[in-house]
Amino acid sequence: MSDTSAPSDNGVAVANIGVVGLAVMGSNLARNLASREGNTVAIYNRSREKTDQLLADHPEAQFVPAYSYEEFAASLAKPRTAIIMVKAGAGTDAVIQALTEVFEPGDIIVDGGNALFTDTIRREKAVRETGINFVGAGISGGEEGALTGPSIMPGGPEESWVTLGPILRSIAAVAPDGEPCVTHVGTDGAGHFVKMVHNGIEYADMQLIAEAYDLIRRGTGKTPAEIADIFAEWNTGELESYLIEITAEVLRQVDAATGRPLVDVILDQAGAKGTGAWTVQTALSLGVPVSGIAEATFARSLSSHPEQREAAASLPGPDEDFRVADADAFIEDVRQALFASKIVAYSQGFDEIRAGAAEYGWNIDLGAISKIWRAGCIIRAQFLNRIADAYAETPDLPVLMTAPYFAEALTSGQAAWRRVVVAATQAGIPSPAFSSSLAYYDGIRADRLPAALVQGQRDFFGAHTYKRIDKPGTFHTLWSGDRTEIEAEDTH
Amino acid sequence: MSDTSAPSDNGVAVANIGVVGLAVMGSNLARNLASREGNTVAIYNRSREKTDQLLADHPEAQFVPAYSYEEFAASLAKPRTAIIMVKAGAGTDAVIQALTEVFEPGDIIVDGGNALFTDTIRREKAVRETGINFVGAGISGGEEGALTGPSIMPGGPEESWVTLGPILRSIAAVAPDGEPCVTHVGTDGAGHFVKMVHNGIEYADMQLIAEAYDLIRRGTGKTPAEIADIFAEWNTGELESYLIEITAEVLRQVDAATGRPLVDVILDQAGAKGTGAWTVQTALSLGVPVSGIAEATFARSLSSHPEQREAAASLPGPDEDFRVADADAFIEDVRQALFASKIVAYSQGFDEIRAGAAEYGWNIDLGAISKIWRAGCIIRAQFLNRIADAYAETPDLPVLMTAPYFAEALTSGQAAWRRVVVAATQAGIPSPAFSSSLAYYDGIRADRLPAALVQGQRDFFGAHTYKRIDKPGTFHTLWSGDRTEIEAEDTH
Repeated sequence: MSDTSAPSDNGVAVANIGVVGLAVMGSNLARNLASREGNTVAIYNRSREKTDQLLADHPEAQFVPAYSYEEFAASLAKPRTAIIMVKAGAGTDAVIQALTEVFEPGDIIVDGGNALFTDTIRREKAVRETGINFVGAGISGGEEGALTGPSIMPGGPEESWVTLGPILRSIAAVAPDGEPCVTHVGTDGAGHFVKMVHNGIEYADMQLIAEAYDLIRRGTGKTPAEIADIFAEWNTGELESYLIEITAEVLRQVDAATGRPLVDVILDQAGAKGTGAWTVQTALSLGVPVSGIAEATFARSLSSHPEQREAAASLPGPDEDFRVADADAFIEDVRQALFASKIVAYSQGFDEIRAGAAEYGWNIDLGAISKIWRAGCIIRAQFLNRIADAYAETPDLPVLMTAPYFAEALTSGQAAWRRVVVAATQAGIPSPAFSSSLAYYDGIRADRLPAALVQGQRDFFGAHTYKRIDKPGTFHTLWSGDRTEIEAEDTH
Repeated sequence: MSDTSAPSDNGVAVANIGVVGLAVMGSNLARNLASREGNTVAIYNRSREKTDQLLADHPEAQFVPAYSYEEFAASLAKPRTAIIMVKAGAGTDAVIQALTEVFEPGDIIVDGGNALFTDTIRREKAVRETGINFVGAGISGGEEGALTGPSIMPGGPEESWVTLGPILRSIAAVAPDGEPCVTHVGTDGAGHFVKMVHNGIEYADMQLIAEAYDLIRRGTGKTPAEIADIFAEWNTGELESYLIEITAEVLRQVDAATGRPLVDVILDQAGAKGTGAWTVQTALSLGVPVSGIAEATFARSLSSHPEQREAAASLPGPDEDFRVADADAFIEDVRQALFASKIVAYSQGFDEIRAGAAEYGWNIDLGAISKIWRAGCIIRAQFLNRIADAYAETPDLPVLMTAPYFAEALTSGQAAWRRVVVAATQAGIPSPAFSSSLAYYDGIRADRLPAALVQGQRDFFGAHTYKRIDKPGTFHTLWSGDRTEIEAEDTH
């Protein structure tokens, strides 16, 4: 359509930003936008009831309601900018389609849902054909974050950032140093990719905390409320983070119905929405070992198979009951083990982002990513400043945990870490994330790995060839023949 | 085309089976087919050189050569049956397309390549439209197995099995009890699914063996040749398997150029063709924890990042050098740990097959699967008879490792298993597969898991709700409110 006939020219184009989809996340984001100086927010929902309800509940927001996509487009000033907040999936495609029919080249469509980054890449490519800018933006922080300030991870074309940047900066969470928790992550699916890895790291962090709690409880006999105090204290040190903080809150909570600690009446079967699995599946395609995230994801699925757990309940553990001799020393060991394991989990997650950036051609500033996670999102923590420092010092750091601050923490913590894994192993307390992260640490620092034997086996049964440490080339031993070695084509 | 004009009626339809694609795997499979009583084998290759070469090299096979798809179809008796042996991917689709153009309803197209099972499901659906039967068949055993007898895992329609069954039974490996290593696994992609999990288990088995070798070597100072003797001895007991057998062979091999053990001159960076990653990715989608396969896959990718390993080489390990006091006792501990971990890996793999069968509607006989792996394939082992026994006794066994034989092995082995993981942890020797399988064992048998805390955290930050141990329903605590509990919609 030409400029003269465009809906925005009919005199009602008063909004600078619109929101489509007014469930809790969408309503809260719309309210957040409306509360910031300079924003006028258009709203649209498939069913008009939600729109009217939001209007009635929040007159102070001065929303501009629309009851059709045409009206919605007409209410937006150019370049029109709309954030879609609907459940990820086919619904997203339908809304994008509808918006592309009423928007014009140069306008901006933002998908703020939890889309898989490959879907975002596909959508960006399709929308780009129309001349409209498509931005997949990861938004973390849940309903509360949407309202008060989330961490936002937008991808999409650079061009969109000119208009979108100030708007997103106005609603994002603010880090302790005053910086808003949003940055243009990279093109097309980069934002949703980074959001996915954020969630994967979150899985690992939560599992590590859960293992720490379990070990302390079973090793010392302390009550959940007593352990809440321990977590609250940890939250004043290097472990300071939102997840540690809320762990203390959860452990302190008493169930009104039974008078027991709430954590003891909650069914021990963990749910998952799939982003942990996505993170691991993507890492497997990229060849990045994210064992901590994988073990955390598996720990949840293991917990959710009650029929298997019931069958396996008769399998024996160690003969002796577990009780540590020195509770305080053990708790300090667990704290150090938790910190060391956490470093590994984040190191693996940042490896995945680096590998994803290389694979998909994104120019991602890893330090900037760690900074926008400092507030608004679930894994917000002091710790992230250290990651920013590490990448500021060495932008092409090959593995995060070798940065001085982390290397030092690992060096000073590794003895405690080993003691904790040993105690868990001897006591029969499952600590898959603790032990896996330590095995990763020992693996990546090893001079020599038995991968050489694996290569020998692969060459034996499948002629997959091997390389040598002492000369270039690719080799094969004639295992079924005279067992001499020949130069071979590389069939890795 | 009508019956009267069909190529098979022109008097040259002498072959009962055809092979398309004559690279090493295809040639060997064609020779295997030709060597069996009653088979006449038509052969076709995109370039005629390979066809002529195979004809010239193996006149005894009495191949029926074809130089076009039309000739190939004309040379086959009805129902025409052809096995495609080309590199998995787009080439497979092209050959399928060409065959469907010259084949007729009731004919059978077999894809014997390493296709991803979801591709096989897609292809089966498309080919079915033409009335032709499409069978995806996993074929294990490498080049040698193709020639002398592979383990074959065919999926596809039941109808195809009438014709295909006798042919595949004629060329399959034969188990010690005389049974051919082939069974109709299930419909559409079932065969390739099972082959994928076979490969995943193979990854885990190899990694466990590699860790056992590494621990013995670093713990006792024995040479590779001495450790070869240990593996050879293990191969006479419950660990008896092809992989243990060839490990001894690889460890005994001396490099002619340097006089050193070959395993010491092989570069310790393990390659992978991706089926391990597929197995884990699929398990993540199915919600099945296959931590052993995941850790094995990650161990290979970790080993293949030299730039990261170099950077991490400065991270410290334990202060003291590792040397066990009683080498023989330690070696026996490692043997038991290896067996226990192997049970876990297979248990996880069979879980994945069971979950896949449920998800995709396949009626898979798990005992039959373990039987067809007893010969011809890489993971062939005595052990598989025990799995068959377990499923014969309890077809709906919820978790394999609880079958009496395995439960007993785990019960008697768990103390040694724990000692080995403790030793590895203290010594700083990476044993991700050993420690992960033990953590899985301790997790699945646990009365109570800290997954309850994870649920509490999820409810706190995302209102994801939780269930209670003492009453049905779904609940949410008003964490930002007065912290009372409300009944809630299930938003898992």
